[in-house]
Amino acid sequence: MNYANRMNDLKPSDIREVMKLIASNPGTISFAGGLPDPDLFPREEMRKATDKVMRESPHVALQYGLTLGRISLREKIAGLMKREGVEAEVENIAVTTGSQQAITIAAMMYMEEEDVIITENPSYLGAISAFKPFSTNIIGVDGDEEGMMIDQLEQAIKRTPKAKLIYVIPNFQNPTGRTWSLERRKALLEVAKRHDLIVLEDNAYGEVRFEGDRIPSIKSMDTEGRVLYFGSFSKILSPGLRVGWVCADKGIIGKYELVKNGMDLQSAELAQMQVDGFLESNDLDEHIGKINSVYKMRRDLMLKTIKKEFPEDAKYYYPKGGMFIWVELPSHMNTRELLHRAIERKVAFVPGGSFYPEGGCESSMRLNFSTMQNEKIVDGIKILGELLRESI
Amino acid sequence: MNYANRMNDLKPSDIREVMKLIASNPGTISFAGGLPDPDLFPREEMRKATDKVMRESPHVALQYGLTLGRISLREKIAGLMKREGVEAEVENIAVTTGSQQAITIAAMMYMEEEDVIITENPSYLGAISAFKPFSTNIIGVDGDEEGMMIDQLEQAIKRTPKAKLIYVIPNFQNPTGRTWSLERRKALLEVAKRHDLIVLEDNAYGEVRFEGDRIPSIKSMDTEGRVLYFGSFSKILSPGLRVGWVCADKGIIGKYELVKNGMDLQSAELAQMQVDGFLESNDLDEHIGKINSVYKMRRDLMLKTIKKEFPEDAKYYYPKGGMFIWVELPSHMNTRELLHRAIERKVAFVPGGSFYPEGGCESSMRLNFSTMQNEKIVDGIKILGELLRESI
Repeated sequence: MNYANRMNDLKPSDIREVMKLIASNPGTISFAGGLPDPDLFPREEMRKATDKVMRESPHVALQYGLTLGRISLREKIAGLMKREGVEAEVENIAVTTGSQQAITIAAMMYMEEEDVIITENPSYLGAISAFKPFSTNIIGVDGDEEGMMIDQLEQAIKRTPKAKLIYVIPNFQNPTGRTWSLERRKALLEVAKRHDLIVLEDNAYGEVRFEGDRIPSIKSMDTEGRVLYFGSFSKILSPGLRVGWVCADKGIIGKYELVKNGMDLQSAELAQMQVDGFLESNDLDEHIGKINSVYKMRRDLMLKTIKKEFPEDAKYYYPKGGMFIWVELPSHMNTRELLHRAIERKVAFVPGGSFYPEGGCESSMRLNFSTMQNEKIVDGIKILGELLRESI
Repeated sequence: MNYANRMNDLKPSDIREVMKLIASNPGTISFAGGLPDPDLFPREEMRKATDKVMRESPHVALQYGLTLGRISLREKIAGLMKREGVEAEVENIAVTTGSQQAITIAAMMYMEEEDVIITENPSYLGAISAFKPFSTNIIGVDGDEEGMMIDQLEQAIKRTPKAKLIYVIPNFQNPTGRTWSLERRKALLEVAKRHDLIVLEDNAYGEVRFEGDRIPSIKSMDTEGRVLYFGSFSKILSPGLRVGWVCADKGIIGKYELVKNGMDLQSAELAQMQVDGFLESNDLDEHIGKINSVYKMRRDLMLKTIKKEFPEDAKYYYPKGGMFIWVELPSHMNTRELLHRAIERKVAFVPGGSFYPEGGCESSMRLNFSTMQNEKIVDGIKILGELLRESI
């Protein structure tokens, strides 16, 4: 009754361990999660959209539907892709159970055990968890303020002839908050072409922009069907609905249909109708504007407080959107250790080392600013500042 | 940009092809699907349960939740397991996106590419689709009126030292409608013990019983944590919600948590709250009683009409529950061919050969009786009867 070998490398994520610590310390100020603020959910609008479905089409909402998702929702999603400079049709879109499932299916579709996935260094933990059952050969490539460093990417590919996928989050990256420049996006696509690699472009945070102009997506420059674009309503509408999507060439979407059919037949029908109904009767941009104005205030407040309270040799990044501020401390410091002292003082964050697929940088930390109210942001950062000063 | 080898064997299912034929022939009487009758959904009760959630707890319904599902729902599911003779706690239950996802995760957890899965012959197509990405070595073992034939199972295991999982549907099997005897269930578990195999017990249809007593589940006899039990609300409440579950040993549920976390983080939160709320405020058994009385009438009507209209050498089985009647025609007949003539006459079914993991028995057919109204059942079976008489 042995498990398959692919189970060996699946471990509970560090974030989950942090969450357990928080759960056993009620009242903790948490900068650890990546949750949208539930006070910003469009509750009344969603209630109305839901009520309409349950009164007018309960026989549809409760019945089996299509594996790739509701046509009318896929049409709307295809419309949203225009914002990213992508001309998409219904046949280019598959609805998935959050973009998380879109990542899993891509890994399943492309990866042989010996193949290599390249990610940013650091990167989204959940993607790494999605990849691991299909390949544990995950290589992180460092980045700077403009995105992944292309010369390092080239070197990594030269070292690993089995490289097959590159997974990137070009907007307001999790965990660093960084946004890729247009030049870096172009360069990545060129490298992918040259080495015949698939690009997985995860844009979960793209709409959570506080300033600056939208930079064209990598998918918008893709003329060969080499890029799979992942989108999600989790950050802008609601994560509990679990409605995400992949936008890709029709042939690839056909493969998504086959895999998803075996995996769960389809995502929850009502959840899709809720999103569809919300988009039908509400102005998505108006809602996004509301969210972003609050998150921007919180980002500004957190940055200001960090500047004031953290020791000078704590380096931090200025995110133009998203949900996270990334902090790098002097290299002798260990944020896993720091976390335990912070938890005692009822403040939580995620140690940055967790986000490195090959380990490393134990002196970094990720701070979420979307969930906590102003006062708690100030109090929590002050406490972290005190602990940091004590350590340095 | 090649797909992984596991994609080679994924083909659109025959059922989907039949569905396309039906879609291009509107007005077709369909015995092809396996859909619950949407007129039997508890629409008003579900609307009320949904409305309560969206008024009282929208911040919960729309937010991220636990990977394994809502505790209160898992408690209720643990309670339902008592009906199957299983003493379960919350920690023995994982909520999944339909039981389909529970099957996929089991395959992912246990199967190496060279391992072998044993199923009934014929078996549920969706399970075979779930298994294929992880192993294409699927062996079907024939059954009789009492379930899988144990001597043939033993022989199959002897021939395949790499056998690892046995997947069975002991109640009102899809597609044959057969129910395993208690003796056969015991014997299967003994064989599994002797050869150290995992048993996947799929009980999607168990509550759709028209007569006779409940027979103890295989899981209820499992003292070693060798059996994974899959349940679902799809047939008794609503498939569109996509709420299913696995009941297994705590260690196995821990692995489900790891895999599901990477796969889709969690199933839709509101769907779980809808089921939870429905179970809280309604009598599930009363609702099941309503469904079963209608499905029983339709089964009786279909059996009666088959008896009258089908040629004498068409052999058919008497299902005590579920949704399907299985018909075996003289071996020279081919039901794939028959289907095309039936579609011209606006009647559809699924050719039985589709359900054999290794192919075979092209002279059988599966007839669904849960979806069509009385009149259509009579009309459709009459037409099939005419076509059969013409062929024989």
